[in-house]
Amino acid sequence: MNLSERKWCGWGLKQSPDLLKDKRNSFWNWLRELSGFTELPHTLPVDINSISLNEPTLPSTLISELETKISQGKITSEPIERIIHARGKSYLDTLALRSGNLPDVPDIVIYPQTKEEVIEVIRWALFNNVAIIPFGGGTSVVGGVNPIKGQNHIGIATLDLREMNRLINIDTKSRIACAESGIEGPHLEELLQKEGFTLGHYPQSFEFSTLGGWVSARGAGHQSIRYGKAEDWFVGAEIISPPGPWKTEAFPASAAGPQIKDLIPGSEGTLGIMTDIEFRIHPLPQEKYYNAYIFPSFEAGIEASRQLMQTDIPLAMIRLSDAQETFFYTAMQMGGGDPSSLPKFCLMLIGLEGDSPCITAGRQIIESIFANHQAISLGEGIADQWFQQRFLLPYLRDEMLDYGLGVDTLETATRWNQLLDLHEAIHKAIQETIENDPDQKPQFPIVMAHISHAYLDGASLYFTFVFPRSLKDPSQQWHRIKNSASHVIRYHKATISHHHGIGTDHKQWLTGEKSALAYELLRQIKYQIDPKNILNPGKLF
Amino acid sequence: MNLSERKWCGWGLKQSPDLLKDKRNSFWNWLRELSGFTELPHTLPVDINSISLNEPTLPSTLISELETKISQGKITSEPIERIIHARGKSYLDTLALRSGNLPDVPDIVIYPQTKEEVIEVIRWALFNNVAIIPFGGGTSVVGGVNPIKGQNHIGIATLDLREMNRLINIDTKSRIACAESGIEGPHLEELLQKEGFTLGHYPQSFEFSTLGGWVSARGAGHQSIRYGKAEDWFVGAEIISPPGPWKTEAFPASAAGPQIKDLIPGSEGTLGIMTDIEFRIHPLPQEKYYNAYIFPSFEAGIEASRQLMQTDIPLAMIRLSDAQETFFYTAMQMGGGDPSSLPKFCLMLIGLEGDSPCITAGRQIIESIFANHQAISLGEGIADQWFQQRFLLPYLRDEMLDYGLGVDTLETATRWNQLLDLHEAIHKAIQETIENDPDQKPQFPIVMAHISHAYLDGASLYFTFVFPRSLKDPSQQWHRIKNSASHVIRYHKATISHHHGIGTDHKQWLTGEKSALAYELLRQIKYQIDPKNILNPGKLF
Ligand SMILES: Cc1cc2nc3c(=O)[nH]c(=O)nc-3n(C[C@H](O)[C@H](O)[C@H](O)COP(=O)(O)OP(=O)(O)OC[C@H]3O[C@@H](n4cnc5c(N)ncnc54)[C@H](O)[C@@H]3O)c2cc1C
Ligand SMILES: Cc1cc2nc3c(=O)[nH]c(=O)nc-3n(C[C@H](O)[C@H](O)[C@H](O)COP(=O)(O)OP(=O)(O)OC[C@H]3O[C@@H](n4cnc5c(N)ncnc54)[C@H](O)[C@@H]3O)c2cc1C
Repeated sequence: MNLSERKWCGWGLKQSPDLLKDKRNSFWNWLRELSGFTELPHTLPVDINSISLNEPTLPSTLISELETKISQGKITSEPIERIIHARGKSYLDTLALRSGNLPDVPDIVIYPQTKEEVIEVIRWALFNNVAIIPFGGGTSVVGGVNPIKGQNHIGIATLDLREMNRLINIDTKSRIACAESGIEGPHLEELLQKEGFTLGHYPQSFEFSTLGGWVSARGAGHQSIRYGKAEDWFVGAEIISPPGPWKTEAFPASAAGPQIKDLIPGSEGTLGIMTDIEFRIHPLPQEKYYNAYIFPSFEAGIEASRQLMQTDIPLAMIRLSDAQETFFYTAMQMGGGDPSSLPKFCLMLIGLEGDSPCITAGRQIIESIFANHQAISLGEGIADQWFQQRFLLPYLRDEMLDYGLGVDTLETATRWNQLLDLHEAIHKAIQETIENDPDQKPQFPIVMAHISHAYLDGASLYFTFVFPRSLKDPSQQWHRIKNSASHVIRYHKATISHHHGIGTDHKQWLTGEKSALAYELLRQIKYQIDPKNILNPGKLF
Repeated sequence: MNLSERKWCGWGLKQSPDLLKDKRNSFWNWLRELSGFTELPHTLPVDINSISLNEPTLPSTLISELETKISQGKITSEPIERIIHARGKSYLDTLALRSGNLPDVPDIVIYPQTKEEVIEVIRWALFNNVAIIPFGGGTSVVGGVNPIKGQNHIGIATLDLREMNRLINIDTKSRIACAESGIEGPHLEELLQKEGFTLGHYPQSFEFSTLGGWVSARGAGHQSIRYGKAEDWFVGAEIISPPGPWKTEAFPASAAGPQIKDLIPGSEGTLGIMTDIEFRIHPLPQEKYYNAYIFPSFEAGIEASRQLMQTDIPLAMIRLSDAQETFFYTAMQMGGGDPSSLPKFCLMLIGLEGDSPCITAGRQIIESIFANHQAISLGEGIADQWFQQRFLLPYLRDEMLDYGLGVDTLETATRWNQLLDLHEAIHKAIQETIENDPDQKPQFPIVMAHISHAYLDGASLYFTFVFPRSLKDPSQQWHRIKNSASHVIRYHKATISHHHGIGTDHKQWLTGEKSALAYELLRQIKYQIDPKNILNPGKLF
């Protein structure tokens, strides 16, 4: 991990890869037209050196005291460190960073090296009433790492876990590995794959997010059908909480009462700092088969996805774009397209991974199901191209922000029989809110979605929306869009997040989603473990 | 459900099916020799009519008050009802019932008909400080339904849920059904299979246990590899708790914080009464393939099981008996056998269920794995026979008890790389405790085990042990055996129960297994929902 190679207020590396290539000009021109601009504005972020921060509120004596206890790790209050740890990667976060208006930044950033140092930090924070913000890759898109104080807290320390990045052991028989929580995706996979194994967790943020962040936010990788969502591949953890260090259960299965380990995925750092995490691993698959198909409608694609999910074949991925998204990506490749004659067809990418005989059986079953839905195979080339580019798309967001646009995503999950209705309703809500924006009206709103993760009983829907940004109050504009979509999600009894988490942004929807009693229970669990609320205050609760 | 056809103090129907047939005499003679008796004692249960019960401590005015609120359901304090609800089906329970010495029985038994009636019962119990014992099939083998009062409770009411047995709906697209919790196995499967679906949960107690009991105790059916353990197929529930009725989350997947629904499986009635339960269903499989194999050793069988579990084939079941169990079942079929020349080979039953092409691929993979472990196929006949007789074995227990013997089972789970050691250690602990029993010493102790449920990372071990029963203090004798095995389980960091649950019998092992912090959390969750401890007091906590 070399932070100096990374952008301070956007996605990924300063040296962004080039996604658009020779279609660059025509693509931006096309987006400009859709958005209704005669010329795309230039709306660049401020210079990082121009940002002035408040003085730390943490007394320097306390910082020195902590320094005596952290001999291997690092403690810093350099402005750049405080800035890059001031926000995650949500649209709101990015707006805030780009504006340079950061009244709330952590007082210090701590990089512990060992479990023992984390224990010292928690003890110190508990004794002195300091808010601790666990920080993995900081790629949260729900405000999960934002520096918020609780009542009576005298300061904020962000705990960046990325120096704790060792692979501790691999049990190839039981197929469980153990690693420190701060390890980033590429590093972890490199170490595992050297031994012939994989965790198989590839979120779009893979390159810059961490094992601990994946579990904390109940994340999902592209191949979650095969490798599981974080809560599925998570086996157990060692956790440092205010009452002390502890280990969760970690059995293949157990009937010894409810498993407390089940409360850890999704706890977003509010119940403790995970130091060591055990997780399932798989040998690299004998064979992979990825292909792309066109379906005559989203409905046909959904029905085929459902049927596929309910077979016994070794699926790894189903990714079904709606007509709008299919159109958008085609336009991106072509440098444009006519939105008034939107075709109805939908792109599906599917992936199989596993034992060769099962893949052979799988391909046979796929063909027979797809034949009933008038699917047309596009061949493995398109799927390959997606595979190569799958981590590049987020770079486009920063460019859009530079050009006066706004872009965000939101996601949910529901049962198969409700998926089509929900898709339509969310689409309508977002589109109408964008169209009726008091500040900025686009020519053609870009609202698109895909099924990103599928299950026996249902699937997730992942929406992307691009809009001309209100320069008056972009945050209010975003809240209007987000609220209208969230209301629809709640009304349809779907979940407010399938894999992004709650953080600050989804908090208000939790009671309705979980029931008052269940949410109160969660609050009590939090209170029991962390009565002084030093662990990531303001998130989830 | 016709309770009058069922035994009051043993397993199943009064009209027991005949498992031993023409081998009856030789089998008992053989068991007599192994146990070291010159003649098997006759130790029959008391006559139910000779049992005298304490008067109910619940004032009759309170019972009448409740009667005004339960118009459709039934409330009874008939002695026979109080007796058959006084215990579950554990060895200790059965000893107690057979002895007729029952100082603790419920004051009344309530059979609610509707959710609303359950709400009334809980309100009434809360207001009047009455302990409520949720009762499904009453097949708990860990003391889960025993009538225990909490502090300040003035009486005990057992809530038999078996009149709440309706299938509420089937969503064939999302493959989720909803049923009332008191529905028994055969009734539920009949209704589902009429529509072409199955839940596929077939514990050995299938015929007499209920949907609610399966979830509450985190049960496992024989085909759990395919259909899941209860916590896997459990989707969500409607629950009546002291603060009121509520519904758990029930999404295909969610990142909206920890899912409170995960606390329900294994909660053993201590957090609320589940009324409606949603669960996954599957279409009846296109094809089934069951076969039996002989392995040269338990170790070879374990290794082959592990390899099988880590393929992509549609496995439904792996059941690997150790040499002792293989020998015992062979002897049962043959009417005897020489235990001093115990062969080493081990029987494995395997089952595949699913789509035909995947089964074909599966059989091919099985053959190639098994060839490396010198496995010999016995043909489908043996597997078939097991399938036919799989619910009959428990009837043998009552006969053993009639003949001065004791018999019990216990189970655990651990990772593949620890399985062989754990098996040996538990076996040794049980055998030595039986051999050194101060009251009764067998000729050849019968201690046997099988792998009953398998996972990617490990498997469960299920032990059965038969021993000459101490007639002085059979309960103490059992505690000696149980303790020695439980110590070994704890020492090896395995779980104290894979699918039986905690109830009263495993409580003392929970803190060690879960960590003090996790167990305290569970207690606080309980306290939060049920501060007056009216829900199944004395179980789990
Ligand atoms: C462009 C982009 C694409 C994305 N794509 C995906 C995707 O495909 N799938 C997906 O699931 N998510 C995706 N995300 C969201 C984000 O990457 C995930 O939530 C990820 O799991 C966060 O990991 P992180 O290491 O960055 O955690 P952070 O953002 O640093 O932290 C996330 C939460 O976990 C807590 N935390 C972190 N580490 C620990 C620890 N060791 N102990 C206790 N608490 C801890 C933090 O306090 C915070 O509340 C995407 C985000 C972006 C910006
Ligand atoms: C011969 C025999 C074989 C067995 N084989 C297996 C096996 O193969 N696999 C397996 O998993 N188990 C097995 N068991 C154990 C037992 O059958 C299981 O624990 C079963 O799940 C219990 O179901 P039940 O309906 O009888 O529940 P009960 O015994 O009535 O209750 C079990 C627990 O759940 C609570 N409860 C019941 N219903 C509800 C409800 N609606 N709401 C809230 N709480 C409730 C009770 O209070 C109790 O604590 C076996 C038992 C016997 C005697």
